Amino acid sequence: MCQLLALSCAEPTDVSFSLTGFAARGGLTDHHVDGWGVAFYEDRACRVFVDEKPAYQSPVAEFLKSYPIKSRNVVAHIRKATQGGARVENCHPFMRELRGQQWVFAHNGDLHALGEHSEPGPYAPVGSTDSEEAFCFIMNRLHAYFATHADADVDDIDALFDVIEQATRTLNPFGIFNFVLSNGKAQFAFCSTRLSYVIRHWPFSSARLVDGDLSVDFAERGTQADRTAVIATTPLTDEVWTTCQPGDLLMFRSGALLRRTHVPVPAEVIARSKYALSELSAIPA
Amino acid sequence: MCQLLALSCAEPTDVSFSLTGFAARGGLTDHHVDGWGVAFYEDRACRVFVDEKPAYQSPVAEFLKSYPIKSRNVVAHIRKATQGGARVENCHPFMRELRGQQWVFAHNGDLHALGEHSEPGPYAPVGSTDSEEAFCFIMNRLHAYFATHADADVDDIDALFDVIEQATRTLNPFGIFNFVLSNGKAQFAFCSTRLSYVIRHWPFSSARLVDGDLSVDFAERGTQADRTAVIATTPLTDEVWTTCQPGDLLMFRSGALLRRTHVPVPAEVIARSKYALSELSAIPA
Repeated sequence: MCQLLALSCAEPTDVSFSLTGFAARGGLTDHHVDGWGVAFYEDRACRVFVDEKPAYQSPVAEFLKSYPIKSRNVVAHIRKATQGGARVENCHPFMRELRGQQWVFAHNGDLHALGEHSEPGPYAPVGSTDSEEAFCFIMNRLHAYFATHADADVDDIDALFDVIEQATRTLNPFGIFNFVLSNGKAQFAFCSTRLSYVIRHWPFSSARLVDGDLSVDFAERGTQADRTAVIATTPLTDEVWTTCQPGDLLMFRSGALLRRTHVPVPAEVIARSKYALSELSAIPA
Repeated sequence: MCQLLALSCAEPTDVSFSLTGFAARGGLTDHHVDGWGVAFYEDRACRVFVDEKPAYQSPVAEFLKSYPIKSRNVVAHIRKATQGGARVENCHPFMRELRGQQWVFAHNGDLHALGEHSEPGPYAPVGSTDSEEAFCFIMNRLHAYFATHADADVDDIDALFDVIEQATRTLNPFGIFNFVLSNGKAQFAFCSTRLSYVIRHWPFSSARLVDGDLSVDFAERGTQADRTAVIATTPLTDEVWTTCQPGDLLMFRSGALLRRTHVPVPAEVIARSKYALSELSAIPA
């Protein structure tokens, strides 16, 4: 299985603290060694850095520590391959453009082949992962929505949420489907079996990484305008994280949780997850 | 105006020699200071690195010198903004996926707004450049070709060349339109006003950069299997380069020139180019 990280920030934020703890899981404190990637939104632009090497020994990861990019929306992923080899084209996040906006997607889980259920449309996988196939499914659903709703507004994130919710209902029975998805305006996150988040806001306190001997006192840096939501497969810090329930589909913007809805997760998906419900309470706080 | 660089190689090649000379033009030996970018194909994957800083002082460019990626197809660009600010989303190369293949595009020139001539289809610009608009035009033409030819083969580069030729004929009257375009299998290059190329093959000789005090003796490294075509706005080295004629549309694969056709360039485009025909003979050899 893989690990997910996403950040939604009210102000452009240097996310190297969270990335440092997260990258350590790519082979150092955990076994996710088949590549990694991170996407940074900078206004309309989105830069994706991926590498098929383990994150903790990736030159690209090392470079990004010394060249922190400030961003309001970040999606990162470290990979333990279940389908598709350790190749660059199989590294998440994947990116596609829709109506002049870049969308990125990262997945933790394992889906059966969609086969004839794949959605017709202009988006197709470049690599050989179930994850990119699912991403293209969602993108083709979004494309179909705009094709059939001439007056649809690409910035109406509530309408986008509704389309993503329907796509998630369709894909959910195919397997474990934790994901983060962003268009640079909002972060959409789905907990199929395991996902947590924490929201940092004024007045800030300090946080210590679970995966490394590093603390940051956000109180020294943060202002009242700052607000950051950190979404991750498991908590990255010793802060009080909220554990999502299987089926939670969430939408964050500017560091705030705006919507939450429930998409039922089939019992057999939860049963075959290594991260079953019964284990969720064992996550370190 | 901007500068273009593309490489088509028979074997995965470390292109840092050419990139070094090219990057020097990004503010050091030339005035292209509004960002730069490079796309490396690695089999099916394509990694794009862009930066809005001048290439010669870009941390991303510095990183790539220490982390050379071996590739068979490379597209690079340094930017002197004519339309669209010095922002990340306006840096070339641009990338889009079509039928499971990544396509990248870089442009040197200045096009009038396509306006009502823009091609309908799923691809739309993220930034505000004429260049990305032209790229989306070509991609929408390619999308329409596949939508209307059910048995078309995405790997039939001759058929792709024909579609690109037609799109080039349509876009050509809108202004100066030197470009390089690749799907990772072939390099398509168009000389609207200024473009050159050199093909290196066995037995190799040495080459000295025009833009820096650096020589490489390819004879020491090259094998009979190696073959590299280097395409650039102006020659990068003291080798014997071929100067393209305005209207040359070329297709390279594995370091070889496979096709050349002529797409007439309107006289007014040549006349208003800073790089007019009369200047072409003044390019240093």
